Order: sequence, then structure tokens, then C-alpha cells
Amino acid sequence: MTALNGSSPCGVIVTGHGQFPSGLVSALELIMGPQDDLVAVDFPKSDTAAQLQDNLAAALGTFPASGRVAVFCDLRGGSPFNVAAALSRDRDGVEIVYGANLPTLVQFVSRRTKPDTEGVLTGALDAGVTGLGRFTPKPIPAAQGDNDWD
Amino acid sequence: MTALNGSSPCGVIVTGHGQFPSGLVSALELIMGPQDDLVAVDFPKSDTAAQLQDNLAAALGTFPASGRVAVFCDLRGGSPFNVAAALSRDRDGVEIVYGANLPTLVQFVSRRTKPDTEGVLTGALDAGVTGLGRFTPKPIPAAQGDNDWD
Repeated sequence: MTALNGSSPCGVIVTGHGQFPSGLVSALELIMGPQDDLVAVDFPKSDTAAQLQDNLAAALGTFPASGRVAVFCDLRGGSPFNVAAALSRDRDGVEIVYGANLPTLVQFVSRRTKPDTEGVLTGALDAGVTGLGRFTPKPIPAAQGDNDWD
Repeated sequence: MTALNGSSPCGVIVTGHGQFPSGLVSALELIMGPQDDLVAVDFPKSDTAAQLQDNLAAALGTFPASGRVAVFCDLRGGSPFNVAAALSRDRDGVEIVYGANLPTLVQFVSRRTKPDTEGVLTGALDAGVTGLGRFTPKPIPAAQGDNDWD
């Protein structure tokens, strides 16, 4: 485990419902290669909120108490976000990103060795927004009896 | 398989690198319950681009040729997006959303029975952007020798 002080990488926890966390991390690592100081905490249907809390506490515990940790959640509200927020009150140095998509995470992870974590976080959120959009190969025809789809 | 004409639900394919698709769908279904007319197409490290193309073509083929299909990708560019875009040139009625996060997908799926797919898609993208943000339980202290993190 790398210490997270100074210019060491900011630790990352990815959490969310179901297998969203491990799925998102698998995509990240397929693109960027295996990552240190990065933990996925799934919340499968079979788990209770207490188990999720234990797993998130254990994940936070893998990082030095003085270190910086960014928690990426699937959405604001819901057990993963709520539990992460509650646990983060017990220690300094935690930021939570909600509504995480792959552009957000790729951008953050690729720059997390920089000491300016605030700037890295802002840049990651910007990348998440600009990286979310639509592409129309061909216009989708209106559904039967509907002229709103042009 | 439900026909997608008229007021029937717009079909959904979720694709991306690794297990991002099945992970995102597991989160969606944990929140909204099992979904019909929704297919996840993973792209594990062991698959070739040709296999991905076969799997995406098969997924598109499960929906009527005259039906509407929304493809949610992990990010713009990369094999899943590029293959989906290429395949979509061969049929009408496909829209691609890239940089998909859970708020985008939840919003789209919850309203996809509406005939105004254009409005549903715009609303989903809005939900994806407004649902992406940061929450600071406590300020993260500056990294050693850095005053940019306040």
C-alpha cells in the first residue's frame, strides 16, 4: 500500500448498487491497466446495509488516516452514497463524487498523483459532463402516430 | 419480446468496456426491478472486436427492425461506441448515449414507454448532468506542501 501523503496518488473507492463498482473499475482497468490504491465496493442484492457499511469502512481503512480519498458513487442518495457520506464524517480528507461515469473516473485516476487534488477533482467533473452526450447515426423515426421524433 | 412500435417501450442496449454494461444494469435493476427489452453487452478483455461486433449485432437483432433502440455506452470512442455507431448505420431508429451514468439510464428507462422518445432522451441527458456532482463531508486537507486544497 502506497502512502497517500505528499505527491502520492489520491486513493479511490468506487461504490454503488449491484456490481456497478466492479463493472466500472473493470472498464477503467481495461483502458488504463491495473490500478493501485483503488478499491471497488459492490452492493449486491444479497447484502444488507450493515454489510455495505462494514465493506466501505474496511475500504476506507486500507488508506492512511491522513491520506486523501475520493469516493465515486453511482448516484446521490441510496445506500452506497449515504453510507459513504456517513462514514466520511469520521475522518478528514474524503470527497464524494456522485453520478460517476467512466470519463469522470478515467480523468481523475489519470491525474491523481498531482498534489492539486481540488483541481484534479474539478477537471474530472468537467470531463464527466462534457463526456456525456448523444450521437445519432440516423434520425430515429417517429413512433407510430407520433411526430415528435425528428 | 414486446414490439417497440407505438407506445411500446424503447429498447435499450447497454455496452462498454469490461463488465461496465452488466454492472450498470445490475444497479438499474436493483433500483427499478427486472427490465424487459434491455440487453447488456459486455466487452471483457478476452473478447476480440469481432466478437463484440457479433454480440452487438445480435443484441440489435433482438429488437424489431422498425423499432426504436437507445444504446448506452461507457464513453465516446473506443470499440463499444465505435462498433455500435457502425452497426447503427445499417438500420434506422438508433440513438447512442455516451458517458452514461446511472442517473441517465434510470431516467430514460423509467420514461421509455412514452412516445416522445426525443423528449425522454433529452430529459435523460439532463438528469445525467444534474445527477453528476460532488459532496464534501469535510474539507480535504492540503497534501503536504500544497495549499490548493481548501
